Amino acid sequence: MTKRIKRIGVMTSGGDSPGMNAAIRAVARACAYYRVECFGFMRGFQGMIEGDYIELNARSVRNIINLGGTVLKSARSKEFLTEEGREKAAAHLKKANIDAMILIGGDGTFRGGKILSEEHNIPVIGVPGTIDNDIFGTHYTIGYDTALNTVIDAVDKIRDTASSHNRLFFVEVMGRDAGFIALNSGIGAGAEEILIPEEDLGLDRLLNSLERSRRSGKTSSIVIVSEGDKIGKNVFELAAYVKDNLPYYDAKVTVLGHIQRGGSPTCFDRVLASRLCVKAVELALDGQQDIMVGMMNNEIKAIELVNALKSKPTINKELLRISDILSV
Amino acid sequence: MTKRIKRIGVMTSGGDSPGMNAAIRAVARACAYYRVECFGFMRGFQGMIEGDYIELNARSVRNIINLGGTVLKSARSKEFLTEEGREKAAAHLKKANIDAMILIGGDGTFRGGKILSEEHNIPVIGVPGTIDNDIFGTHYTIGYDTALNTVIDAVDKIRDTASSHNRLFFVEVMGRDAGFIALNSGIGAGAEEILIPEEDLGLDRLLNSLERSRRSGKTSSIVIVSEGDKIGKNVFELAAYVKDNLPYYDAKVTVLGHIQRGGSPTCFDRVLASRLCVKAVELALDGQQDIMVGMMNNEIKAIELVNALKSKPTINKELLRISDILSV
Amino acid sequence: MTKRIKRIGVMTSGGDSPGMNAAIRAVARACAYYRVECFGFMRGFQGMIEGDYIELNARSVRNIINLGGTVLKSARSKEFLTEEGREKAAAHLKKANIDAMILIGGDGTFRGGKILSEEHNIPVIGVPGTIDNDIFGTHYTIGYDTALNTVIDAVDKIRDTASSHNRLFFVEVMGRDAGFIALNSGIGAGAEEILIPEEDLGLDRLLNSLERSRRSGKTSSIVIVSEGDKIGKNVFELAAYVKDNLPYYDAKVTVLGHIQRGGSPTCFDRVLASRLCVKAVELALDGQQDIMVGMMNNEIKAIELVNALKSKPTINKELLRISDILSV
Amino acid sequence: MTKRIKRIGVMTSGGDSPGMNAAIRAVARACAYYRVECFGFMRGFQGMIEGDYIELNARSVRNIINLGGTVLKSARSKEFLTEEGREKAAAHLKKANIDAMILIGGDGTFRGGKILSEEHNIPVIGVPGTIDNDIFGTHYTIGYDTALNTVIDAVDKIRDTASSHNRLFFVEVMGRDAGFIALNSGIGAGAEEILIPEEDLGLDRLLNSLERSRRSGKTSSIVIVSEGDKIGKNVFELAAYVKDNLPYYDAKVTVLGHIQRGGSPTCFDRVLASRLCVKAVELALDGQQDIMVGMMNNEIKAIELVNALKSKPTINKELLRISDILSV
Repeated sequence: MTKRIKRIGVMTSGGDSPGMNAAIRAVARACAYYRVECFGFMRGFQGMIEGDYIELNARSVRNIINLGGTVLKSARSKEFLTEEGREKAAAHLKKANIDAMILIGGDGTFRGGKILSEEHNIPVIGVPGTIDNDIFGTHYTIGYDTALNTVIDAVDKIRDTASSHNRLFFVEVMGRDAGFIALNSGIGAGAEEILIPEEDLGLDRLLNSLERSRRSGKTSSIVIVSEGDKIGKNVFELAAYVKDNLPYYDAKVTVLGHIQRGGSPTCFDRVLASRLCVKAVELALDGQQDIMVGMMNNEIKAIELVNALKSKPTINKELLRISDILSV
Repeated sequence: MTKRIKRIGVMTSGGDSPGMNAAIRAVARACAYYRVECFGFMRGFQGMIEGDYIELNARSVRNIINLGGTVLKSARSKEFLTEEGREKAAAHLKKANIDAMILIGGDGTFRGGKILSEEHNIPVIGVPGTIDNDIFGTHYTIGYDTALNTVIDAVDKIRDTASSHNRLFFVEVMGRDAGFIALNSGIGAGAEEILIPEEDLGLDRLLNSLERSRRSGKTSSIVIVSEGDKIGKNVFELAAYVKDNLPYYDAKVTVLGHIQRGGSPTCFDRVLASRLCVKAVELALDGQQDIMVGMMNNEIKAIELVNALKSKPTINKELLRISDILSV
Repeated sequence: MTKRIKRIGVMTSGGDSPGMNAAIRAVARACAYYRVECFGFMRGFQGMIEGDYIELNARSVRNIINLGGTVLKSARSKEFLTEEGREKAAAHLKKANIDAMILIGGDGTFRGGKILSEEHNIPVIGVPGTIDNDIFGTHYTIGYDTALNTVIDAVDKIRDTASSHNRLFFVEVMGRDAGFIALNSGIGAGAEEILIPEEDLGLDRLLNSLERSRRSGKTSSIVIVSEGDKIGKNVFELAAYVKDNLPYYDAKVTVLGHIQRGGSPTCFDRVLASRLCVKAVELALDGQQDIMVGMMNNEIKAIELVNALKSKPTINKELLRISDILSV
Repeated sequence: MTKRIKRIGVMTSGGDSPGMNAAIRAVARACAYYRVECFGFMRGFQGMIEGDYIELNARSVRNIINLGGTVLKSARSKEFLTEEGREKAAAHLKKANIDAMILIGGDGTFRGGKILSEEHNIPVIGVPGTIDNDIFGTHYTIGYDTALNTVIDAVDKIRDTASSHNRLFFVEVMGRDAGFIALNSGIGAGAEEILIPEEDLGLDRLLNSLERSRRSGKTSSIVIVSEGDKIGKNVFELAAYVKDNLPYYDAKVTVLGHIQRGGSPTCFDRVLASRLCVKAVELALDGQQDIMVGMMNNEIKAIELVNALKSKPTINKELLRISDILSV
């Protein structure tokens, strides 16, 4: 028989993403609905270690569903990587009578949660919150849809000036290990070429594509480059290489950077966060632990945390083909 | 053996939706990629009847992926409802050597296409483009995601003033027969209550919910009402009813109206439009007809047009439960 | 010799407007800079009457510069219209040792402040915060620029659908007594006609203009109507009148309503609010009272409150001429 | 007696800016209103040299008022710097019977116009269109207000993540020689410090300010840096310097780049462009030449082009003081 859950903790950890506040709100409201207490830990694992937490009731999360960032703040805690750090964290959780922790973040967060569960028997439930969409067990992570829209808004602005000046722009987007943002925003932004970590399409291909574009009458082009693109050159080197080889191109570079992490979440991310976190609370109340909730085919499902950590989701290579066709 | 397809027509029809231009672009580019000709018909069936069409090549659709509305314009044609009208349309299609027509629109559009196919043996392929998301055979229609974000942007603004003044706002959103917009934007906007055509939750429930909210310390509330809500009162009557029964509420009404049809499409809608229309062209080239392409569980699939028209998709009632929990 | 000012109060009152939070922040920060205390009164005069106020330091206004609405909330207080109400308010101000009050709002707010000053000798300084831009003594009020942009964003969306469908749209914007929003947003939105409270251009003129537009090949049109337009018909009646007289037009109506009061303030409104409120604090510290700060010709200046209340600013009729020329 | 003007040319040149399309529209519409012909030259002076121009009537500029970029495209022409280039340009203008040219751009554009006028007696009228706001004779240039809002939108997003992570961000904005964008967007974005080309505030001051901020409890900070800041270090060096000297800060860098040139223009920029260009056409029709139209204190006025080129506008140093007070 499972112990009755009376108090649930929640935190956000790792890189922040839009929708984390909607997620925190959903945890707090679901706890209020089911009449259990809710505590929010500040700055991820670091707040656990320091015993830095606040009580969250239904009203304390009002008017945050639309805010970017995270009211609980986030951090990457070095101390938590040590056994002593985790002991402190576990001691605070026990002192605060936390019966289950809901961890909103990416795989670093989940790995931390798993160790905490193993070493100190703290029930944890992961909720995928990262703009990178690189979590196995969910088709969408909280913040990814917003990041895509931030990218295409920026590229739409760049296209205004690119097409006014007949220019070539290289735009670097986030995604060190995963090309989800680049691939989807590239199609959404109508990019000429999309360079991602998963595929080395080769520099020759890029040059050929740009040369063919020019001949076909295209007067401006956008190339979307993932931070960790497989070609291995950074975006400035790529631009220089193209300028050397195709001197008629006036190539410019924009690195979008941290604007991709902020902003008011889209409806999709707010609804996703709401659904995932209501489910997370319900599963916690049901005594489940060491799982991650995710959305697969529009349904909210849970998988073992260990399985979520074992694999990486793969990009839809069909989208590369679509991109090729559309940049004809 | 299927006839070789050499020329494909495309049109937008019915209520316009954001992403229709991304769809037109994808049809034109896919045609260019596969080296078939593409003709765009103006103002839906009316342009067919009048023989009003233009050639679309890869370059003529440049820089439209991010524009709201439809460069081919849209209309509801009364003349097409007559046999004579359809004969004229078919004659123009044949004269223009159109081998297949891609119809972007809602079920009215598809019904028109089906008759055209039956009466005049014109191969048609439907692409779901409407903000209402009320098409069977696809989880998402082009424009729906953008409309959701337009609604939550507007409600976020209204919430600013609602919470500054401790007010109750009734916000009417589109959806005469389907509550998709209301339900998802309601959760995304953090609405107190959501009234939809599919469910009569009753006026008592509304009063109880608002009364409970007030007692729990909520100082402002948003109620999202679908045009065709089941309670059957329009949004002004609802506001008046609440004022009569809960006089301490200062209830205001906003009808969002046609802003929901416009705006630059979201990344989701642009990618969806791109994927659906590349597939539509490929299926046309493959000789398929009288089908509709849709996205089910992140995959692009085709169903018979007749099946798409036979049913209506159902809302996810789980979301009503989520909304209840989150407005605690 | 003026008394040394040690504590300054601030409140927002009347209809809220975007930038009020930037204004509150600027008051609190300027107080901190000059090392005087700052107290924020909740819900305008009502909070004074109830003694509902909070201390504001430099940190308590962090991260609000970009938020719509007002963290101090706003209200229209009926009780303050009575002598007893004002006595209560004054008593609370004295008990709280408030040496000067900064009032952010429109002319109703300033009138209240003036009486408070006359009856109870409370030094007050007005800061013009209203979307209507209808305050004498300043070329711009806080929130007006944001409201203009909210309107044109909405009308841009409506234009998408208007031009896709060859339609005529009547769009009602705020401004019961002043046509500033209508006139400037009308030019910004490329409206065909602009109807404002200050001028009765006549229904004939409207019909002629629309008829001429149609003949000149315009396929869609937007008419911007101020709430209190001089013709005296509301926007629905206007649309009906046009439909009756120009039956080939498919006329639709959108009432923008309260979305115009919300939203993140524009850069202009944030800078304006910052400059006005730093000046307001500095003038208060200088012992000045019963004045309003305003921006005239890009400079921040103060005028007597009594003068601000005596007149109304006039619209720039040159803009009507510009609108005529541009809708040719 | 001045020659009757029958045909007016218009072009956009130099760096593009949001509102250039609204300006082109206003020129074309004003020409139509006054029944003179209007020709648009493509890619600035380069289109003149190549004789690349199109006729613009009232309808050909429909639905562009809200678009970023310039439908006439822009360029910097090297050939125009040569006497031969200018002769070709003048020959094309004469062949096309252009009686006056309206040049939309910055001081490079105006300098080109002045030489053309001197060498070939072509009447030119300048319209200030640049995001940098660095033109003498106007308080605002077309595109500047939009660029400010683009910057604060981006910084608002960065602040979400900065405050979630307690981070310091250096954000580089455009403005090689002028700090207008940095100074106003810095105040609008609530920046801790603002570094501009006009003032060397010194690195010590920056370190002191950041150190003081940290002690006062600020947990995140934004520093806005103009491209050409007087300290002379680029934004990456600045961040490195701060990290070296204040190691507890996790300093990140974002270079906003070309997104600042694009985007749908704000209402302010659309109205400004409309007013300036109607006036430019009217002055051209009046036979005036070698002038620039500008907005001073909300009025549209013309100054001699030679005077506009002689000076540079100065930033409002009062704003530096405001920034200091508000970042307390």
